[in-house]
Amino acid sequence: MAILLADTANIFWKTHRVFRGYAYLPHSLADEPVLFVIRPNELDIPGVQYIRKPEQIPAKLEELGMELPATLGLELDELPYSQAIRLQKVFPGAKVENVSVRIREARMIKTPREIKLIREDCRKHAMAYERIPKLYRTGMSDIEFQIEIERVLRQEGCLGYLRTYGGMMEINMGSVLNGANADVPSPYDFAVGGGGADLSLPVGADGEIMNPGTTVMVDMNGNFNGYQSDLTRTYAIGDLPQFAYHAHEVARHILRELEHIGVPGYPVAEMYQKAVSIARDHGLAEYFMGHRQQAGFIGHGVGIQLNEWPVIAPKSRHRLEEGMVIALEPKFVIPAVPSKTHKPVGAVGLENTYLVTADGLENLTTTPEEIVTLID
Amino acid sequence: MAILLADTANIFWKTHRVFRGYAYLPHSLADEPVLFVIRPNELDIPGVQYIRKPEQIPAKLEELGMELPATLGLELDELPYSQAIRLQKVFPGAKVENVSVRIREARMIKTPREIKLIREDCRKHAMAYERIPKLYRTGMSDIEFQIEIERVLRQEGCLGYLRTYGGMMEINMGSVLNGANADVPSPYDFAVGGGGADLSLPVGADGEIMNPGTTVMVDMNGNFNGYQSDLTRTYAIGDLPQFAYHAHEVARHILRELEHIGVPGYPVAEMYQKAVSIARDHGLAEYFMGHRQQAGFIGHGVGIQLNEWPVIAPKSRHRLEEGMVIALEPKFVIPAVPSKTHKPVGAVGLENTYLVTADGLENLTTTPEEIVTLID
Repeated sequence: MAILLADTANIFWKTHRVFRGYAYLPHSLADEPVLFVIRPNELDIPGVQYIRKPEQIPAKLEELGMELPATLGLELDELPYSQAIRLQKVFPGAKVENVSVRIREARMIKTPREIKLIREDCRKHAMAYERIPKLYRTGMSDIEFQIEIERVLRQEGCLGYLRTYGGMMEINMGSVLNGANADVPSPYDFAVGGGGADLSLPVGADGEIMNPGTTVMVDMNGNFNGYQSDLTRTYAIGDLPQFAYHAHEVARHILRELEHIGVPGYPVAEMYQKAVSIARDHGLAEYFMGHRQQAGFIGHGVGIQLNEWPVIAPKSRHRLEEGMVIALEPKFVIPAVPSKTHKPVGAVGLENTYLVTADGLENLTTTPEEIVTLID
Repeated sequence: MAILLADTANIFWKTHRVFRGYAYLPHSLADEPVLFVIRPNELDIPGVQYIRKPEQIPAKLEELGMELPATLGLELDELPYSQAIRLQKVFPGAKVENVSVRIREARMIKTPREIKLIREDCRKHAMAYERIPKLYRTGMSDIEFQIEIERVLRQEGCLGYLRTYGGMMEINMGSVLNGANADVPSPYDFAVGGGGADLSLPVGADGEIMNPGTTVMVDMNGNFNGYQSDLTRTYAIGDLPQFAYHAHEVARHILRELEHIGVPGYPVAEMYQKAVSIARDHGLAEYFMGHRQQAGFIGHGVGIQLNEWPVIAPKSRHRLEEGMVIALEPKFVIPAVPSKTHKPVGAVGLENTYLVTADGLENLTTTPEEIVTLID
């Protein structure tokens, strides 16, 4: 089966470049691709075939002495309907197959080159986070705080663009969630939502002043080189109720347990169940992965896109494999400390990005995990 | 014909909200939509129908006393193939029609509410730009300069997310193009490209120091409320060759001519031709809208997305209509001053966002148009 890639993330995966056009794989996903490029009009790669439209591809293949495919794999889960129909017509003799799932599964296992890039991301991401406490000023809003974090990330080399799968998860450079806003449900499949600053982008910081007794959860963009890393840390404004510190320690305990059981072959659905059962054992089930709205996962693959497979969720049929990179993000949203006060605390918990090695999970985002109290 | 909207931008257009789910219009685009919402699980809109999956919609329609459609309009240019097929199966009795073009054309004409929002965007966008000259420091790289502009835009209320049509035009908060980098072809349909900081995001600033004798073209995000404004201004580091100032004045002259001829009924293709002919008359055709790679348009509609219809391009069949909002962006890329030196200057020119009124074009981005020389 030949495969014609048109999705930007998939093209970048196979070619290490971004262009408007197609990457043609004559027989299998493992092939060296033939690049059919519409734009840019100059690309410093040998053998590039410049085209104006996909209808020129069959003639170009013939020129290259390549047979037209009997079966054509297309990314039917990503390609717009009209474009898929158009590409089918370009190869009228070919039977079309959907290769989206196959590609998402292939992309789960990172190459040594990809692992090197993600390691670099994680290192830079963690380094930028170590500058976060210095950015806080008393009386700041969550957005003001986020703006300073964005600047520091960009100064450390973050590209400022968060690539997600599926076109639905719109976000700016990330999520800074303070106090009650952490419990506002959002349309997106992020672990924790937030109302956002505007109804057009209903996620993340909402512009409220960060007051004592609340937390700030920072989950910002880690794309420094086309690959993502995912890293969340929690900060406190003033003193928190003991309950919040406790829940944060439970989140850390969940990570330690998952690190312990996470070896190649382990079913990711059981990692999810393990995390939920620890939260339940500590009486925290109703706050785990959200409160008014709960996320149905505790982690996810990370790569070119932020939300790759495997999803660490109850119905996932994937098992850990060497070379996967996954983010694990046990988080609790605490709307008010039970039987003490009704003041919402916010989100606690954390997120690390891990490489699955033969020996188990290697944390690539090694920066202190404790709640840091922010002071001027 | 009933229409089932699934595209986020289209849903936002009809409902003023963003959610995961569908907006169902029983008879036409003008209908009040019935909202079928998957996520978030709370939305403060009366009459919201919460669903887990689209297969529940027909039963919900029956409950609401609504007939199932004989013809179903779907966004076939935007919906992924698999999702379109799935939605077709949800309404097995319905004949499916592609409503993408119809919606893009309806969205060309802005409502009074939309015009108010875009006016507000343009005002804030222009206000933020007036802070740009103060951000420059000698020896800055283009990315360092862009980071400071991003921060100022965000401080003025910019949401930091640039919504584009088609899923291909990936970009961070915008484009800052200095010197030779302005002539580097990019895969995207932006008027001017740039190589970017990384091969994974090959557009815009590339990290080079901004040296005397070059320009900096600033074309940054104007999304303050879910609607975009589009605004470009050019700055100089030190003195530029006279040729560059001249080309910039030609770009301003093009805008004045287009403002003069741009009344309702005027074919946008003729606006394009007018712009090209002025550039040609001044001997600047080879630099117009790029040099190594030239863009095939001089402007575009602006709204929820940055690149809406009409496209001001030679093959466009649209005419100006009252209520359209368009950005006009005559730009020149000057690789080296002919017969003087071979040092590349960069891009000159500008971009304003206009409302088409009964009387002609109203500039919504009124801020000085001259090249400003940047000094510490």
